[in-house]
Amino acid sequence: MWLQKEITLKSRPRGFHLITHEILQAVDELLTINMGLMNIFIKHTSASLTINENADPTVRQDFENFFNRSIPENESYYQHMDEGSDDLPAHFKSSILGNSLNIPISNGRLNMGTWQGIYLGEHRNYGGSRRLIVTIQGE
Amino acid sequence: MWLQKEITLKSRPRGFHLITHEILQAVDELLTINMGLMNIFIKHTSASLTINENADPTVRQDFENFFNRSIPENESYYQHMDEGSDDLPAHFKSSILGNSLNIPISNGRLNMGTWQGIYLGEHRNYGGSRRLIVTIQGE
Amino acid sequence: MWLQKEITLKSRPRGFHLITHEILQAVDELLTINMGLMNIFIKHTSASLTINENADPTVRQDFENFFNRSIPENESYYQHMDEGSDDLPAHFKSSILGNSLNIPISNGRLNMGTWQGIYLGEHRNYGGSRRLIVTIQGE
Repeated sequence: MWLQKEITLKSRPRGFHLITHEILQAVDELLTINMGLMNIFIKHTSASLTINENADPTVRQDFENFFNRSIPENESYYQHMDEGSDDLPAHFKSSILGNSLNIPISNGRLNMGTWQGIYLGEHRNYGGSRRLIVTIQGE
Repeated sequence: MWLQKEITLKSRPRGFHLITHEILQAVDELLTINMGLMNIFIKHTSASLTINENADPTVRQDFENFFNRSIPENESYYQHMDEGSDDLPAHFKSSILGNSLNIPISNGRLNMGTWQGIYLGEHRNYGGSRRLIVTIQGE
Repeated sequence: MWLQKEITLKSRPRGFHLITHEILQAVDELLTINMGLMNIFIKHTSASLTINENADPTVRQDFENFFNRSIPENESYYQHMDEGSDDLPAHFKSSILGNSLNIPISNGRLNMGTWQGIYLGEHRNYGGSRRLIVTIQGE
């Protein structure tokens, strides 16, 4: 069985956001899959998808602060600056954190750990809405 | 054909560990797959999975040293500190290195390069045992 | 439906290279897939695959400069130095950027965003030709 859906995430401020619930709501067909995989792909080069701690919101704030310090804006050697100082670091963050996830499905549920949640990394100051493609396959 | 197994890795010290052999031992059904993919997913937010050099053990030591320097403990701006100074950096490492792998299967074997091995990144000082979900699909 | 092909990329200089077109040319069977996924796996530990901005070539130059500064050669604590000063940083870059991609297929095409392209990260000074395994599944 194959299923594919495009999900449009509403515009969010720069930072890391927990979107597990929003994805699950969009694909209730998940319940019918006994064994399979879900691929989530973000169609943008200045945002990212990653899995991390779903309980303490300060983890997401620490993510934003850590990645802003590790990947600074306005370095003198940067060339691609036409789209604003937040754009090039957003490209780096997107490739370092990744633009897709692959999560096992078992007994109608995502088989993640208790503390795992799906993060959207919004790396632009005004990134606007973001489009995901969710592809489910299984039996 | 679909196959899914949970593997529990024994507790290992902080650092990078080659686990290719342990995974292959757990899924001998691999031999029956002519063409397919293996997904390996770690159900934790303070450990990681990556593929790298399988021959020289100093590479794994260099990985540990490099990531500890790039992603230090006890930065003054960190907020999420309740679970120990190794916890937040472990979350960053997990997202940077990644929590799942997707490896092609050809003729009953993982189709990796000669020098490629599967690493567990154990990023906590006392992480305990770690659970993986291995999902195989193919024909 | 399953399809698997090995692609040999010609030798390229150290840096980031757009290879979308080369991959698409090698798998024209993509046209027959209505819904599915493409996995691209690089069989090397000193090169990487990532998705990023496909229009402005200075982005790829900025990637090369950024990753060279973030992951320097010849640090005094490095142990694995026998294969040249570019080798160990190449291993780190490979694990940080990743060695495989998973891209949705919709209506016979890769369902990427307008600005997304597939990058080969060649992290060795003389890496030689690079082998990829492309696995397509779908219906």
